[in-house]
Amino acid sequence: MSELKLLGIAGSLRTRSTNKGLLRAAQSLLPADTVLELADLSDIPFYNADVTTPPPSVQRVFSQLAQADGLLLACPEYNYSMAPALKNILDWASREPDNRLLAGKAVAIMGAGGGMGTSRAQYHLRQVCVFLDLHPLNKPEFFANAFTGGFDDQGNLIDETLREALRNQLQALAVWVRQLQK
Amino acid sequence: MSELKLLGIAGSLRTRSTNKGLLRAAQSLLPADTVLELADLSDIPFYNADVTTPPPSVQRVFSQLAQADGLLLACPEYNYSMAPALKNILDWASREPDNRLLAGKAVAIMGAGGGMGTSRAQYHLRQVCVFLDLHPLNKPEFFANAFTGGFDDQGNLIDETLREALRNQLQALAVWVRQLQK
Amino acid sequence: MSELKLLGIAGSLRTRSTNKGLLRAAQSLLPADTVLELADLSDIPFYNADVTTPPPSVQRVFSQLAQADGLLLACPEYNYSMAPALKNILDWASREPDNRLLAGKAVAIMGAGGGMGTSRAQYHLRQVCVFLDLHPLNKPEFFANAFTGGFDDQGNLIDETLREALRNQLQALAVWVRQLQK
Amino acid sequence: MSELKLLGIAGSLRTRSTNKGLLRAAQSLLPADTVLELADLSDIPFYNADVTTPPPSVQRVFSQLAQADGLLLACPEYNYSMAPALKNILDWASREPDNRLLAGKAVAIMGAGGGMGTSRAQYHLRQVCVFLDLHPLNKPEFFANAFTGGFDDQGNLIDETLREALRNQLQALAVWVRQLQK
Repeated sequence: MSELKLLGIAGSLRTRSTNKGLLRAAQSLLPADTVLELADLSDIPFYNADVTTPPPSVQRVFSQLAQADGLLLACPEYNYSMAPALKNILDWASREPDNRLLAGKAVAIMGAGGGMGTSRAQYHLRQVCVFLDLHPLNKPEFFANAFTGGFDDQGNLIDETLREALRNQLQALAVWVRQLQK
Repeated sequence: MSELKLLGIAGSLRTRSTNKGLLRAAQSLLPADTVLELADLSDIPFYNADVTTPPPSVQRVFSQLAQADGLLLACPEYNYSMAPALKNILDWASREPDNRLLAGKAVAIMGAGGGMGTSRAQYHLRQVCVFLDLHPLNKPEFFANAFTGGFDDQGNLIDETLREALRNQLQALAVWVRQLQK
Repeated sequence: MSELKLLGIAGSLRTRSTNKGLLRAAQSLLPADTVLELADLSDIPFYNADVTTPPPSVQRVFSQLAQADGLLLACPEYNYSMAPALKNILDWASREPDNRLLAGKAVAIMGAGGGMGTSRAQYHLRQVCVFLDLHPLNKPEFFANAFTGGFDDQGNLIDETLREALRNQLQALAVWVRQLQK
Repeated sequence: MSELKLLGIAGSLRTRSTNKGLLRAAQSLLPADTVLELADLSDIPFYNADVTTPPPSVQRVFSQLAQADGLLLACPEYNYSMAPALKNILDWASREPDNRLLAGKAVAIMGAGGGMGTSRAQYHLRQVCVFLDLHPLNKPEFFANAFTGGFDDQGNLIDETLREALRNQLQALAVWVRQLQK
């Protein structure tokens, strides 16, 4: 099988973010023939339709998106919906001609947060995927409680059950990417 | 009756935004004993939990929120959900002690966009209001098509039917604010 | 204070339903000056616009709704949305002239189910309340796990922490009903 | 190519339902090598977990689902969410072992209703599809206004633009079914 290129995007800007931690964990839990690069959102400005040429920070993520066969979206929940930084990079990407950066790509959605593991935000993100023509995995969903010892104080995922759940989601994503590419 | 102080927040950063235009129109359509101030989001950074003291631009909006009896949220729709800039200022505001800037306040939601008038984004915003303990008006909802001549090329609302609908929503908001203050 | 009349509607048709159990528990946890009657959905047919006169079973619930100052909706979650039986009685009720059975009433939403306590279904129900002009409590929300010992095998709520949470929601509802009646 | 078997399910029980009309129209607009059978929901009871053996009316739809390669769901909107009759048959079907009737199937969602063409209900249905492991088409979505002359008084779809949009959705569904079967 040819190598799958995945791109991971975490919606939190915190240094010790548990959602960033999920993506770092994913890098150590990948199935065979898969690589996972991470996007950096720290210098991405708000989308503004008056800006006709996206700035270099945005172009940098565009290059990563263009090469990705599939996406991992680590979706924090703020006030029962998505973190603006995650939504914002998708909004930037959606303005490229023919939706060339996103159309038809497979996605795994994951999140770390309160007791429901960012589920409310994840269902909003799924609605966004309809318009973006992204195909999120139905199952397994991934919801992590960030406040019950599953992460260390640097945001690293240390809970073995959650790590196994994440590994399973990544395997399902690899299958889903290949199914959609046929 | 005592004067009602309303604060309007538009989620778009474009100069000629039709959602900003809705708020300007609202300023000329207010019921008696009501004033409407507008927030400026142009220099608000992304919320970041590592930032313990909100910057002056955020503090400026906090002052406006603290004085407001009710809110007008002009909610653009990007990719079937909210514009990040609108969600982001609410996320900043939600971190104040005891939710003092938002708790229990009445809200009118409005939007200008494609054929459904930002309805998909508005229902996401309503879910956010649950956690923020904001009380959006149920009726009348306000949905404007931004692409069929209702706005001039500066984003000003010129359609008389829409202006009347907006006037009706503002009247309902004034009643709702006073009902909730009792 | 005058007595508040509340009506409880559970969306499950099972005999030993935990959602019915929530309403029975509520009857023993009411604040002062409050009574709670329960609706029976067992013989309510599907709404059908061809039926111009609602059958007696539906009329019976209409009478209860007409007398209610506020509603308790016990909302099961089936497949990430509402139980049809709960949605269906609201659909019947919505067709009365001037929305006379529902308009402006206060509502408490609660649910027992899987690990998220029917939250996905509850947010759908909240969207329904927008059109019905019902005013659900923002806080406290009530989510019960039905599978971890909180209920006995008859569906009775026996967990003390959950009973206290339910008591708190009922007190908040009584305050909210009176606030909206002013 | 082998013949695709599609099953259409309309959520309305009205005789002259425009949502039923969409499915009849679909039967005359099918791509090559495709057949479309329709389900009859008129005698399906509410799902009740106490009923361990589904009644014959439900078994009849189960047989149709078992043979279907893909689904057309005509989704009315009542009070900003799904018609209970549509949700209910999906709830019945979801209880079969290993989700054998639904897992992995492709779906086209369509609807006729007010000005937004049942969009609010359709996004709720999409969330249901996550748990059911159904794969709804992202694009094209199909939204029909039922009140502006697009249907005759029997509920037949007569508007040529809408018929063409429906034909396009059916073609996309056939491609999507075959993509997912690989």
